[in-house]
Amino acid sequence: MNYTETIGFVAAILTTAAFLPQVFKTWKTKDVTGLSLPMLLMFFAGIVAWLIYGVLKDSPSMIFANSITVVSAFLLMYFKIKYSKK
Amino acid sequence: MNYTETIGFVAAILTTAAFLPQVFKTWKTKDVTGLSLPMLLMFFAGIVAWLIYGVLKDSPSMIFANSITVVSAFLLMYFKIKYSKK
Repeated sequence: MNYTETIGFVAAILTTAAFLPQVFKTWKTKDVTGLSLPMLLMFFAGIVAWLIYGVLKDSPSMIFANSITVVSAFLLMYFKIKYSKK
Repeated sequence: MNYTETIGFVAAILTTAAFLPQVFKTWKTKDVTGLSLPMLLMFFAGIVAWLIYGVLKDSPSMIFANSITVVSAFLLMYFKIKYSKK
């Protein structure tokens, strides 16, 4: 793995890991009042676009990071829709 | 601007914009109980790494997105430290 991809993977691990506690917290507390569905949709669409960009740029770090984050973003949208029905 | 960078800029705008309401909300409410400093530090370090990666990969979209997000992440850390002193 070259120098550039090493930095990319450090970035990928840091930003992906920083995002996971939010998913875990929302799953545990079922508190979705602080989450906005339009924002989550924008974020999800943005991550999908970054994933496509990572493939086009031939960037293993971006493909790795955004593949995980797209699942996290999807879960947050799912929780928001599921737990808002009250 | 080529096809790849067009997708990159769409991604940049979507994910950057999705992050701004959090900064604004924290600034207005001064409620930082939901924010974790270690997570913010990780996120900030990750964004700095993505910015370096974007420069090394010669990616205008990544440089653009991460330059804005690094400021947002810094502001959230600043608010967390400032408003936690109670």
